[in-house]
Amino acid sequence: MNEFYQKDIISIRDYSREQLEKIFASTDKILQQDPADRREICKGKTLGYLFYEPSTRTRLSFESAVASVGGNSLGISDITSSSHQKGESLADTVRIMSIYSDILVLRHALDGSSRFAAEISDKPVINAGSGTEEHPTQAIQDLFTIKKEKKKIDGLKIGIVGDLKYGRTVYSLLYGLGNYDVDVRLISPESLRIRSDSVYEIKKKLDFTESTNIEEDLDELDVLYVTRIQKERFPDEEEYLKVKGSYVVGQDLLKKMKDDSIILHPLPRIDEISPDVDKTKNAKYFEQAEYGKYTRAALLGLILNENGF
Amino acid sequence: MNEFYQKDIISIRDYSREQLEKIFASTDKILQQDPADRREICKGKTLGYLFYEPSTRTRLSFESAVASVGGNSLGISDITSSSHQKGESLADTVRIMSIYSDILVLRHALDGSSRFAAEISDKPVINAGSGTEEHPTQAIQDLFTIKKEKKKIDGLKIGIVGDLKYGRTVYSLLYGLGNYDVDVRLISPESLRIRSDSVYEIKKKLDFTESTNIEEDLDELDVLYVTRIQKERFPDEEEYLKVKGSYVVGQDLLKKMKDDSIILHPLPRIDEISPDVDKTKNAKYFEQAEYGKYTRAALLGLILNENGF
Amino acid sequence: MNEFYQKDIISIRDYSREQLEKIFASTDKILQQDPADRREICKGKTLGYLFYEPSTRTRLSFESAVASVGGNSLGISDITSSSHQKGESLADTVRIMSIYSDILVLRHALDGSSRFAAEISDKPVINAGSGTEEHPTQAIQDLFTIKKEKKKIDGLKIGIVGDLKYGRTVYSLLYGLGNYDVDVRLISPESLRIRSDSVYEIKKKLDFTESTNIEEDLDELDVLYVTRIQKERFPDEEEYLKVKGSYVVGQDLLKKMKDDSIILHPLPRIDEISPDVDKTKNAKYFEQAEYGKYTRAALLGLILNENGF
Repeated sequence: MNEFYQKDIISIRDYSREQLEKIFASTDKILQQDPADRREICKGKTLGYLFYEPSTRTRLSFESAVASVGGNSLGISDITSSSHQKGESLADTVRIMSIYSDILVLRHALDGSSRFAAEISDKPVINAGSGTEEHPTQAIQDLFTIKKEKKKIDGLKIGIVGDLKYGRTVYSLLYGLGNYDVDVRLISPESLRIRSDSVYEIKKKLDFTESTNIEEDLDELDVLYVTRIQKERFPDEEEYLKVKGSYVVGQDLLKKMKDDSIILHPLPRIDEISPDVDKTKNAKYFEQAEYGKYTRAALLGLILNENGF
Repeated sequence: MNEFYQKDIISIRDYSREQLEKIFASTDKILQQDPADRREICKGKTLGYLFYEPSTRTRLSFESAVASVGGNSLGISDITSSSHQKGESLADTVRIMSIYSDILVLRHALDGSSRFAAEISDKPVINAGSGTEEHPTQAIQDLFTIKKEKKKIDGLKIGIVGDLKYGRTVYSLLYGLGNYDVDVRLISPESLRIRSDSVYEIKKKLDFTESTNIEEDLDELDVLYVTRIQKERFPDEEEYLKVKGSYVVGQDLLKKMKDDSIILHPLPRIDEISPDVDKTKNAKYFEQAEYGKYTRAALLGLILNENGF
Repeated sequence: MNEFYQKDIISIRDYSREQLEKIFASTDKILQQDPADRREICKGKTLGYLFYEPSTRTRLSFESAVASVGGNSLGISDITSSSHQKGESLADTVRIMSIYSDILVLRHALDGSSRFAAEISDKPVINAGSGTEEHPTQAIQDLFTIKKEKKKIDGLKIGIVGDLKYGRTVYSLLYGLGNYDVDVRLISPESLRIRSDSVYEIKKKLDFTESTNIEEDLDELDVLYVTRIQKERFPDEEEYLKVKGSYVVGQDLLKKMKDDSIILHPLPRIDEISPDVDKTKNAKYFEQAEYGKYTRAALLGLILNENGF
């Protein structure tokens, strides 16, 4: 029996390096498969999604993933605004969705919502974003992209730039990177630095430095992971405008980077990366989105097949 | 040829006891089938849904049902609020959906809407809720649940509690129970008693008594069917608050019931049943939801296959 | 290799008569096929839709088309009102959707949006309506319907009535008809005449006359193509009310037409055609909708199969 069979995916912190490598190997297998063979992996399985926070991107990634392995999907894409709710508890909604589907995908604003759902559901639950820190499938996607594009993760110098305070993508990625021997540089405006309570835990597993200046030692980075800076995160517009421009990755910054460095972004992007970077060989954020589809497909295959695939 | 082939499902009143038993037998068959065999039943068939009143629960039940028998679904989940409408008539929308699909599922506020749609459509139509009285697939689901959990329907004492005036689930269930030899007790606040015009017809087929006190002879019931009491049904909040608490099914009430009695609820529930009842052996409302998926799957199989399945 | 393989569908102007006839032949083939054979054509392929302008009708037509040839669909049905957008560019959204699907269907208010999307996407793009002039699959559907119902297109007298200024359906149809030897009569209120810039180009390929009177020479028409007149297109309500009634096709007008003439409408209709016309042998707008499903299915089959089907 494969160790992921019928298991929930709640936090990237639950995964060892060995487990991550198994997921990567399964993803590689899927990438090499013929589409017709791929569609046998989860043939006829139903993925049920519950999005208490809307995220078209993540929903479509899961929908395309399950379709690629032969399954189908159904669910609710924006529960809070949908009239169906009528005050039903998360517990009841999860119980019902676990009747309607073979695996559940849940996004919810609250920390712990996915673990709670997993306890209630008798079908496996995948956390598609919860609270401020957890987005495990995004982290798996990001780690796979780095490995795929740089051929390794150990030994890399990785810069993460943008809103490090509110972006759960960043926390999940950092926890995931904790399994590897990497040098991390966190770059953000002072007011959007990583939260100190998280820093404590991350520091135990990972070496990182912090900076407000993206250009500092930029030529040393192998990976630059860019995230969005949202205007609404700033106390006033003035502070936002001061900061905004300085974290835009364009040709000028790119020229200061190593020739074989890669630029990643969880998407959607607004203007953190100039469109003129898109066609450079360094831009790998669309590949990253594609890997996201296939890492998710691999996870579905592992969770829904007793003996893997 | 099976008698349900290409037939509409408009009202539970159109079904004889014998027909209901055939549907139950087909549901039992589906429940015992291997998922891969099940997916052959309606392989490649398309279910088209038109929800003029939103009901995520019913839509997902049908979507999961058709997926379980190998089909797919498409449609419109909230027509009134969707910008597409542009004043198109129900007749035209039904005609078009009958081109796009092999079977139609319609929910509409008006009495008679499904029968009207069935006349227009050249594909079979399933009424997923219309007007104040009809929700035939819910009634079939409820009857199947009772039969499955109590091994019989004849001879049972069945209490139905809550809003009996506005809940179409209740009327459909009562009409369905009219095919069996049961004792029914209707429990509701005075202002939410069953409508007198319906009582007339139901009385011809069914013995029932009415009460406002849920505790009265509670120890005699085999089944307690709980429905929601909606605040907006009351003329003023005071009256609502007076009534609300007295119909909540909790451990205290449960202790007064027979050891092998069952609690049902069409869901979603708000607070009519305490969560602490969920884990008791009497709580069968989640089983009821699961049976809803498979009774619907059986109906689709019967309607779409000339020789049944 | 078939000439449509992996090709975009941007404008009906890109198609020669010979190409249109090939599409019609493929549609005929699909119409004659057994549903199970049909589902092999695009088995497991994913259609991704992006509707920047809502159009339930067109979306469902594509969804049912891809389901009929064995594929599935996912996407966003109303981007502008969806919270997901967060300012992402059309280019990025198209790139991502081209990762999630095998073929893209795009509707967008801007002229040129589909051509732009096709340049960016590495999957083929189908224009499902853009700007004021382009709706190529609707034109193909309309031409196929005429051919199917009248057994030919050459030599026909075709009236097009309604809002000729704003209806992109009309422009696409006219460009398509430019490949045939037809007599076209354009009938509209003075203020809703076809746009003069388009007239210039259309005149080079097509003979047409303009009129404000629907009854003039009505007895000569083989085809009457009716479109909606929207109240909001008029500067004031008075002018609208003056015009409205005179373009309604009812039994009285129908009696003045040739016995074997046909009435078409892109749907949805409001009251441009009286319901009492629906049951006459002349009414072909529901057949037109059905042909729309199968012309789209044929296009998907041609685009997604190297050697056709």
